[in-house]
Amino acid sequence: MTDAADLTARLIRCPSVTPEDGGALVMLGDLLADAGFEVHRVDRNGTPNLFARWGARGARTFGFNGHTDVVPPGDLGSWTHPPFSGHVQDGVIWGRGATDMKSGVAAFVAAAIDFVRETPPDRAVILTITGDEEGPSRDGTIAILDWMRDNGERMDACIVGEPSNPEIMGEMMKIGRRGAATFTITAKGVQGHAAYPHKARNPLHALTTYLNDLIAAPLDAGTDHFDPTGLQITSIDCGNPASNVIPETARAVVNIRFNDLHTGASVQADLTARANRVAQATGVTLSIEAQISGEAFLTQPGPFVDLVRGVVTQETNRQPVLSTTGGTSDARFIKDHCPVVEFGLVGAYMHQVDERVPVAQVHQLKTIYQRILEKYFE
Amino acid sequence: MTDAADLTARLIRCPSVTPEDGGALVMLGDLLADAGFEVHRVDRNGTPNLFARWGARGARTFGFNGHTDVVPPGDLGSWTHPPFSGHVQDGVIWGRGATDMKSGVAAFVAAAIDFVRETPPDRAVILTITGDEEGPSRDGTIAILDWMRDNGERMDACIVGEPSNPEIMGEMMKIGRRGAATFTITAKGVQGHAAYPHKARNPLHALTTYLNDLIAAPLDAGTDHFDPTGLQITSIDCGNPASNVIPETARAVVNIRFNDLHTGASVQADLTARANRVAQATGVTLSIEAQISGEAFLTQPGPFVDLVRGVVTQETNRQPVLSTTGGTSDARFIKDHCPVVEFGLVGAYMHQVDERVPVAQVHQLKTIYQRILEKYFE
Repeated sequence: MTDAADLTARLIRCPSVTPEDGGALVMLGDLLADAGFEVHRVDRNGTPNLFARWGARGARTFGFNGHTDVVPPGDLGSWTHPPFSGHVQDGVIWGRGATDMKSGVAAFVAAAIDFVRETPPDRAVILTITGDEEGPSRDGTIAILDWMRDNGERMDACIVGEPSNPEIMGEMMKIGRRGAATFTITAKGVQGHAAYPHKARNPLHALTTYLNDLIAAPLDAGTDHFDPTGLQITSIDCGNPASNVIPETARAVVNIRFNDLHTGASVQADLTARANRVAQATGVTLSIEAQISGEAFLTQPGPFVDLVRGVVTQETNRQPVLSTTGGTSDARFIKDHCPVVEFGLVGAYMHQVDERVPVAQVHQLKTIYQRILEKYFE
Repeated sequence: MTDAADLTARLIRCPSVTPEDGGALVMLGDLLADAGFEVHRVDRNGTPNLFARWGARGARTFGFNGHTDVVPPGDLGSWTHPPFSGHVQDGVIWGRGATDMKSGVAAFVAAAIDFVRETPPDRAVILTITGDEEGPSRDGTIAILDWMRDNGERMDACIVGEPSNPEIMGEMMKIGRRGAATFTITAKGVQGHAAYPHKARNPLHALTTYLNDLIAAPLDAGTDHFDPTGLQITSIDCGNPASNVIPETARAVVNIRFNDLHTGASVQADLTARANRVAQATGVTLSIEAQISGEAFLTQPGPFVDLVRGVVTQETNRQPVLSTTGGTSDARFIKDHCPVVEFGLVGAYMHQVDERVPVAQVHQLKTIYQRILEKYFE
């Protein structure tokens, strides 16, 4: 029996603040190699990545994905126990990554090691673990998937072990994600004196009209598995120090989380069309720069989703909601490779000071992952 | 005969960039003393100011007001002739202050000197000239009026010699001004992740809603002598560098030019009431800081306005519009002392590089001022 809680504490003691490995993947590589896995480090551009397979290549293959990098601990003095101590007290493991997601990685690594000990080699398990999920995510899971494609490796289904439960174990699993895009809108008008506005064109008025139009009515009402598309203005800036001068330019940043009614390109087209209408009405130029960080995706409910849901219900006595809420995760890359579902711990403390996890929860998650492996290969 | 064009050129040669006098008021003081005026320098807090009276104190008194300070010349290399050269060529005087408003001061000083030469001393003329109109205007015309009150001096009517014609001599005179106020609106919400907006309160959404409400419908439709109240957003700033984070605070600056339907206090009350409604609907605090730089005022059309309009029509063959447009001027202080009207040159070049004025226009303005004095005392 591999102790997932102990492994969590040992992983927390590796100071793997993104993009540093801090020894985390080295430790996991050794552990998996000892357990009979074929292990490859598939680092790219200095980013540490681990690929591990047990069983025959080409066999029916179940995969897990996770990351060992963590966000910075912030003010060290605010922590009850040092963030990289992996301190265990009264059944709780403390430290950065305790929930996001060294515990999740520990749970699926432990589950996989125990599972393969007694299973025939015509069943394969692949683990993909990256050190670049909290960072730019350019050379992390993507790099592992690229390497797998080039080396004939394939998963038939995959679980991402990110925290998926808002408050209580078993209440939520994720079967997709909204897409995410950031738009920078630059309004350029004509400078002038505030007392003579007819001689100027105020970019702030055009921008206000434009943004108000965006926030006044939602882009859609949501779909079967998705919330309505969300839109947040995250900055408006002008930097005009003279209160009697109409400025020439102003800039706004809008963050959009869109559902499966849209693509990044269709959202961009919509925003551009609205900008053109405002520009025509005001004479102010509105130019839009788009950064699309992920498309919306959905793993359609079916046998795989039912299997995971069934196990979670059995082990937690809760029927998990099939959700697509939240920020992005590496599932957005894996969905192009195979059906993917996210299930992990309670995420309440993630990215916070005093991040911590109950030992019992880590054991429970390991059990859920083991049952999923058993059911999948039944 | 005092040559107003020559006096204009000599005044331009005094580099009186606000708050410097550059010798301008010294020269005018000597000139007026020589012409028999009682002259007082009434400087306050280092700001140069000149008071000059001809005729008996307590007699029926006509006044002129103007300023000799000028705005900075900007890039010297862009000027065709050096900005403080007072260069005269082909009937045009060049230099900073040529229109705003050394020519206006020269015209009324010359008109007054020539007028008093042949008039009985039971008619009085007062000239108030400041070196702080382009600056903060705290120790300029206000200081002269304070001194006059303390010393029993009084004007019965006054002309401010600021440029009042947009394009052509005689087309416009000003009988009042809109009030001016600047409001800084600070929106304070709750910071959060752009993917979880229900956990945050976006100050930019509240601010956008608020500002859109302000610019969507005009505050009024104007009055008999006033344009509609004008409102310009002059800055919106947030300074949030993270496009996936909902910021905590944002700030907007709004410049309002209000007509005689409002006071600074009533505009402030209106903006505050609107802010409270948005705050109640959004949970975002909107606090407002007001800077009221002048109240709206109107010199009611009547004998004095008719007199000035009649002379302008006679001398220019144009019926001047009675306007209240434009930025603020020192008339906003004088209106509390006596009826005040603004009439001066064409303002097309004011505050620009290559500011200049035709010699003929300065002579014409001097003649108009002389005729006004004659008519007033008829």
